[in-house]
Amino acid sequence: MSMGIASSELIGPLFVRPQFASIFSDRHRLQALLDVEAALARAEAECGVIPPQAAETIAGKCRADLFDIAELGAATARAGNPVIPLVRALTALCGEDAGRYVHWGATTQDIMDSALVLQLRIVLRLAEGELDELIAALAALAARHRDTPMAGRTFMQQALPVTFGFRAAGWLSPLLRARARLDEMAPRLFAVQFGGAVGTLASLGADGLKVQAALAGQLDLAIPDMPWHAARDRFAELAANCALVAGALSKIARDITLLSQTEIAEVSEPAEKGRGGSSTMPQKRNPVGAIAVLAACEHVEALLPVMTRSMAADHERGTGTWHGEWLALPDIVVHAASALATMRELAGGLVVDTRRMRANLDLTGGLVMAEAAMMALAPGLGRLAAHDLVGRACAAASTQGKHLKDILGADQAVREALGAGSLEQLFDPATYTGQAGAFVDRVLAEAARQQGERDSKGSRI
Amino acid sequence: MSMGIASSELIGPLFVRPQFASIFSDRHRLQALLDVEAALARAEAECGVIPPQAAETIAGKCRADLFDIAELGAATARAGNPVIPLVRALTALCGEDAGRYVHWGATTQDIMDSALVLQLRIVLRLAEGELDELIAALAALAARHRDTPMAGRTFMQQALPVTFGFRAAGWLSPLLRARARLDEMAPRLFAVQFGGAVGTLASLGADGLKVQAALAGQLDLAIPDMPWHAARDRFAELAANCALVAGALSKIARDITLLSQTEIAEVSEPAEKGRGGSSTMPQKRNPVGAIAVLAACEHVEALLPVMTRSMAADHERGTGTWHGEWLALPDIVVHAASALATMRELAGGLVVDTRRMRANLDLTGGLVMAEAAMMALAPGLGRLAAHDLVGRACAAASTQGKHLKDILGADQAVREALGAGSLEQLFDPATYTGQAGAFVDRVLAEAARQQGERDSKGSRI
Amino acid sequence: MSMGIASSELIGPLFVRPQFASIFSDRHRLQALLDVEAALARAEAECGVIPPQAAETIAGKCRADLFDIAELGAATARAGNPVIPLVRALTALCGEDAGRYVHWGATTQDIMDSALVLQLRIVLRLAEGELDELIAALAALAARHRDTPMAGRTFMQQALPVTFGFRAAGWLSPLLRARARLDEMAPRLFAVQFGGAVGTLASLGADGLKVQAALAGQLDLAIPDMPWHAARDRFAELAANCALVAGALSKIARDITLLSQTEIAEVSEPAEKGRGGSSTMPQKRNPVGAIAVLAACEHVEALLPVMTRSMAADHERGTGTWHGEWLALPDIVVHAASALATMRELAGGLVVDTRRMRANLDLTGGLVMAEAAMMALAPGLGRLAAHDLVGRACAAASTQGKHLKDILGADQAVREALGAGSLEQLFDPATYTGQAGAFVDRVLAEAARQQGERDSKGSRI
Amino acid sequence: MSMGIASSELIGPLFVRPQFASIFSDRHRLQALLDVEAALARAEAECGVIPPQAAETIAGKCRADLFDIAELGAATARAGNPVIPLVRALTALCGEDAGRYVHWGATTQDIMDSALVLQLRIVLRLAEGELDELIAALAALAARHRDTPMAGRTFMQQALPVTFGFRAAGWLSPLLRARARLDEMAPRLFAVQFGGAVGTLASLGADGLKVQAALAGQLDLAIPDMPWHAARDRFAELAANCALVAGALSKIARDITLLSQTEIAEVSEPAEKGRGGSSTMPQKRNPVGAIAVLAACEHVEALLPVMTRSMAADHERGTGTWHGEWLALPDIVVHAASALATMRELAGGLVVDTRRMRANLDLTGGLVMAEAAMMALAPGLGRLAAHDLVGRACAAASTQGKHLKDILGADQAVREALGAGSLEQLFDPATYTGQAGAFVDRVLAEAARQQGERDSKGSRI
Repeated sequence: MSMGIASSELIGPLFVRPQFASIFSDRHRLQALLDVEAALARAEAECGVIPPQAAETIAGKCRADLFDIAELGAATARAGNPVIPLVRALTALCGEDAGRYVHWGATTQDIMDSALVLQLRIVLRLAEGELDELIAALAALAARHRDTPMAGRTFMQQALPVTFGFRAAGWLSPLLRARARLDEMAPRLFAVQFGGAVGTLASLGADGLKVQAALAGQLDLAIPDMPWHAARDRFAELAANCALVAGALSKIARDITLLSQTEIAEVSEPAEKGRGGSSTMPQKRNPVGAIAVLAACEHVEALLPVMTRSMAADHERGTGTWHGEWLALPDIVVHAASALATMRELAGGLVVDTRRMRANLDLTGGLVMAEAAMMALAPGLGRLAAHDLVGRACAAASTQGKHLKDILGADQAVREALGAGSLEQLFDPATYTGQAGAFVDRVLAEAARQQGERDSKGSRI
Repeated sequence: MSMGIASSELIGPLFVRPQFASIFSDRHRLQALLDVEAALARAEAECGVIPPQAAETIAGKCRADLFDIAELGAATARAGNPVIPLVRALTALCGEDAGRYVHWGATTQDIMDSALVLQLRIVLRLAEGELDELIAALAALAARHRDTPMAGRTFMQQALPVTFGFRAAGWLSPLLRARARLDEMAPRLFAVQFGGAVGTLASLGADGLKVQAALAGQLDLAIPDMPWHAARDRFAELAANCALVAGALSKIARDITLLSQTEIAEVSEPAEKGRGGSSTMPQKRNPVGAIAVLAACEHVEALLPVMTRSMAADHERGTGTWHGEWLALPDIVVHAASALATMRELAGGLVVDTRRMRANLDLTGGLVMAEAAMMALAPGLGRLAAHDLVGRACAAASTQGKHLKDILGADQAVREALGAGSLEQLFDPATYTGQAGAFVDRVLAEAARQQGERDSKGSRI
Repeated sequence: MSMGIASSELIGPLFVRPQFASIFSDRHRLQALLDVEAALARAEAECGVIPPQAAETIAGKCRADLFDIAELGAATARAGNPVIPLVRALTALCGEDAGRYVHWGATTQDIMDSALVLQLRIVLRLAEGELDELIAALAALAARHRDTPMAGRTFMQQALPVTFGFRAAGWLSPLLRARARLDEMAPRLFAVQFGGAVGTLASLGADGLKVQAALAGQLDLAIPDMPWHAARDRFAELAANCALVAGALSKIARDITLLSQTEIAEVSEPAEKGRGGSSTMPQKRNPVGAIAVLAACEHVEALLPVMTRSMAADHERGTGTWHGEWLALPDIVVHAASALATMRELAGGLVVDTRRMRANLDLTGGLVMAEAAMMALAPGLGRLAAHDLVGRACAAASTQGKHLKDILGADQAVREALGAGSLEQLFDPATYTGQAGAFVDRVLAEAARQQGERDSKGSRI
Repeated sequence: MSMGIASSELIGPLFVRPQFASIFSDRHRLQALLDVEAALARAEAECGVIPPQAAETIAGKCRADLFDIAELGAATARAGNPVIPLVRALTALCGEDAGRYVHWGATTQDIMDSALVLQLRIVLRLAEGELDELIAALAALAARHRDTPMAGRTFMQQALPVTFGFRAAGWLSPLLRARARLDEMAPRLFAVQFGGAVGTLASLGADGLKVQAALAGQLDLAIPDMPWHAARDRFAELAANCALVAGALSKIARDITLLSQTEIAEVSEPAEKGRGGSSTMPQKRNPVGAIAVLAACEHVEALLPVMTRSMAADHERGTGTWHGEWLALPDIVVHAASALATMRELAGGLVVDTRRMRANLDLTGGLVMAEAAMMALAPGLGRLAAHDLVGRACAAASTQGKHLKDILGADQAVREALGAGSLEQLFDPATYTGQAGAFVDRVLAEAARQQGERDSKGSRI
């Protein structure tokens, strides 16, 4: 059975990377569940709750290839979760002596949540690598183009010059904060789930806390303040962080599509044979990487509400909401991580046309420098009066098809206010990029600082 | 590659039915694309645009088993869509004479949208059958329990008696409107997509409209007013209708979970071996069908915004938004249809405990009949004065642990207002179900009317 | 108290129109509730359930100016809804004889839902007028520019020529379907809510159905199959339809912002003093109307899930979900209707620069005509071979900075395939707009047909 | 003008608290904008950019009561934002000498974003106080009921005993993490926005960074790495954190509604005259506080996607997305903060019926102790065999209407496995709450630790 385009071999590769998606293959899912059952048996043997030989037998049978996935799946549809038939099958596999200790003291959600945390940790560690490389690629772009003028645009209208490095730093800055958030989240997220039926560990009598700690040790996970069967903020926070990453990637992708427009053409995606063509238009070179990122990120954001809603879980286990997470969370992390990987490729190979950037600054006959003219006139005329004077000059320039410089130069008041000769230099976009370079430097310094901290302290992910 | 729990053989069967999901298997996807290419070739031969032999050759090669899905998928990740490599492969397969006419005058989106409409039609026809059966099952419940008293509850508090048939009619009524909406939507949705690169059919010169009509005929689809590459309301409306169905199913599922609570226990899901157990609690019989419906329906609703947003497609093709649809729409329809199927099973086998319903009405010592007492007193005392008098009596009954009847009976004013003997009969819940039966009859009549109309006119789906 | 930017007098006018927003002013809200109470009293008098004089007294006191809104509001926060304190205040106002019959047999939700339906009907009728005018304005644009060539763009890249009339028809077409959906919805939506505490009308004994019908008559609303306290699809459908309208408006607004870009500049919003300026950039003329529409429509779409979720109302009244509707539905309809009004103004005054449209078609040195060249070569070379040949020529043209025509003209194979002289005419964009005009005609015909039908049958709204 | 129920004096008080909403009154909004203009003038005077007297004059006119809000609003609808007309009006107010320096070097978004950050800081500081009190109230509940047994419920079915203190600790635990997240966020959020038209501060020449720092100092805000006109993660993170708080509150509210059900009746909202009644049912005491919290929190969650989407802002200013924030963010924070305040009241006055809790544990004839029986039998029989044996016994108990203890006691195998006398004590729910108390202690310790840290280091909010 198959459904959902992301799981399609035909179309899925456009959105989803195998290194992430494979963590949620049935084989991996099953193995993760079994890893927790094995760790539980060992933890309980360690605490003297079950015999060591039983634990070893159980752990030895916790191999996905010993189970029939389709058979488990059919039983899952009836039972409501895969752990019930899995425990039954594992018990049978282990024989009478060891089988009696399978799943001792646990509940389904203990196994499923802990397994999911293990899978998420793998994905997040891989994704962190992609994020680091993306940050490095954007930092390189920002440094290389620190002083490359291009038109800044507000509401998609040319506004003032910026530099392309400034733009790239603007792409980078939110990713640095995203990395910080992931790091802050990690100690909350990577916590074992183990509480038995309702989270009290009653099934283990006096041994509950000891076994919980041993299991956490076995899985290299933190011990939470209490079981979190119905306290789902950890997963909701992860989903929110994925959406924040997706938002940051969407901004870059949106800008790439806009800057790639035929009429702007300042950047294009990396050239590659067979990339971004059309089935009918021979001239096309579509920004398909950015498009795939936009679609994948929208998917991430769409599923976030499922995870925040799940926080309203009833009593000791969310009725419907917990199962809702199963459908949403793997999709969220895999699409976000895959979008990171795609964007890392795009950023690394982005083709930047600095001549076109410069040419576009010249398109408007000086209108893009209107604020510069206003600020030059403001000390003499007052800011608002200068604004209105230049505004009228802009309108005249448009109507008459003239350069703003010439309109202003024809104005006695302007000439008096500015003195001769200064008009020409006022209209050089390269002189009016303000602190763009300084801001690039600040962002690069923060990236370096953060990297240095990680080099010395390591990541918490 | 695999990801997303719904595409998991291990867990997916809980949420997704193979009859629906299989329509979106890679094999089916590919075949649907090829079906459109074949129909296009035939339509163009029919119009004299390409040679008939070429059309036959092309149509003969439009078989999914002739293509390597993984290879196409790898190329899709570069090209940005699967049609570009597919056209290339199909052209090669057809040889020089026929291959030259493959995909004549078409653009990728023509093929993908039309193929998707074909797939959706299959799913919707199957789903309509499930909906009809669900309607029949709910109608049967409503008829059988037309006069079975149970507690009506507002804000989860016992309010007044209703009947279980009234509740079931309340489940049914929105589904009748849902069916009407699907029927109204069908002529809009089942329209061919064919416009060439930008929707003008320029590639076909004077033959454009003729070929469009012939292609619609080949595919048994309607001819739209104009190509809809960037007018996505048809798909957004479908998604909205799926969400409205999901909402109606969620209401039933929510009620089932609430009525199945240990402390209420008025209904339970169909008994079946291995159904709704727990890995640790032997007594459990969880409402797993309702839970799966809630989760699947939440998934449907979460993805709806992707489809409404896609309506803001830019220019002649949505940048990112169109690809976003690919991820969302199959998931939406398959989860909605699967939830319908699950609910149809639940409704057909729902276990109703009428004795418990009656017993729960007696739980409150007559408080559930407080409005009846108020209305009996209202003609004498005035509605609000009666409301306040009975309100005080309710408080007294609670505090003193007495039956409301006894508290009221001890009140001189009440006895005078009501006359002797009438108090007792006032507190019989079965006498205070108002027009519950009449409303059941109305809803059943509407269901019958709608069915009759469909029997005579047929469905438009 | 005030909050939310839309209710701000300072900023709200950008997003929300007073003619719609005022329907949800406190005064109007209160009056709508009172209108239902008055209609209920009259209906019950009509049915002989309460004395006619009482009904007249009650109806006479159902005037919003007789009540203290702040006092009612304070009590609402405790009671959980405004009807409880309102009934108390109205009862007191009516004096003993009539007061005893106030709110006879009704429940809070009867009053609130029916009042809301009345308010919605007012908004929808006003909004329908705006929609009609918008449709007329777009039809005029489509007709005027039926044959005005402009660049069609897919994934924001120039693709092939279209006409601006074709684009405008593409904006119009979904609005025609939107109008049809609203018309189909109307008979479902405009239904009275009246069922008493749990929907059974038990409080009215044998008179329930008669009073329900009389109340529906008083309010000129339809009689539903059964009370819909917990069947919320009517409101969810309205919200979905608002989102579909919002989506259609967002597409137009998105296109306006893209076409207004400095580098494209094919359309601009209506010129008006003080419109779309900047606090610092004198040259700016921002597309503020389109921006306001995008923001308002996003608000509509964001709140839709609240309404679909409310369909999962528990038992006889949704716990939390019903109150959630109160926060969402007025916002949804007011923002959608206001966006319609803003777009109607934009469409009516849109400034279209046909020379710039033509100039942009010439920007690419013939690349926008690449498909035309391919199709001209396809009969000789085969479609895919022609595609690849022209693709190579496009790359050469870009690299060498030459016109595509010249690259192709230098190719012996091309010259042989096409014959002399035909290349020149191949590159005239005006000859390659295909069926753009025919599609405009079809859409205009559909608009006229729909208008004719409404003129003869009237709207159901 | 007015719209949206939350801004209604009649109904709004149910959802929104004046102390939060008033921060977004027009008067406050306007004053916040003026505060930033005043601070800018002072900062520029401090840096020698404008004359000190001009700054003092400007600052002196930055008083909301000097402006006509309706007039500004009308101009806002044309201009696209309120700062353009405000700057014009302020310039006029300041007279020629000072007026010339109004808004020097700034852009609209500088003023609006910085003002919003100031408003958000006020709300967040107030909300933090509510959160602290809520945490204290829940800690008190958890401590008081540390050992009060009640039924734990999974999927709304009775599962095993927990304690009410354990449940309350489960409500508390996510709020502790929410507080930690807010603290981590604060240094990112409370950053000045100041970059001029496109974020480069070009208008200030060499003085840009100096003025930026001085302005940050004036407003007591942090200096960001670079202006964030199009890097919206700060606000999106705030919205996500509000949704995480809303999720945590919804869980508590959901549980209160479920535990307040007539058939469970273990808790009820604080008793107060006029609270939670019905317009027609005298016995009603609806959980209106929890209902209002659910609705307000749903509103918060619905608007979150607007904020994450806004991260995909184009170029230097988001077209439509920035304005979308205006509609969403105030609503998000005010509703979240108000829900905190309502929940703080509920938690402080929650009525807990410990006898009913105990009685409900006895409802099932021992089924709630089935796991205990299984675990007692597991050492002898093996876990799964014991599970199945007890499962059969549970079914028999249900069918025969007997106590599970008696069914098991009649089983020879059971008697042998357990020994005489142990069955009785096995069925005492108070003995099977496991580590519930220990988990309460852990959560309380974490709350105390966090409070201690804040007492010593202070909050960063």
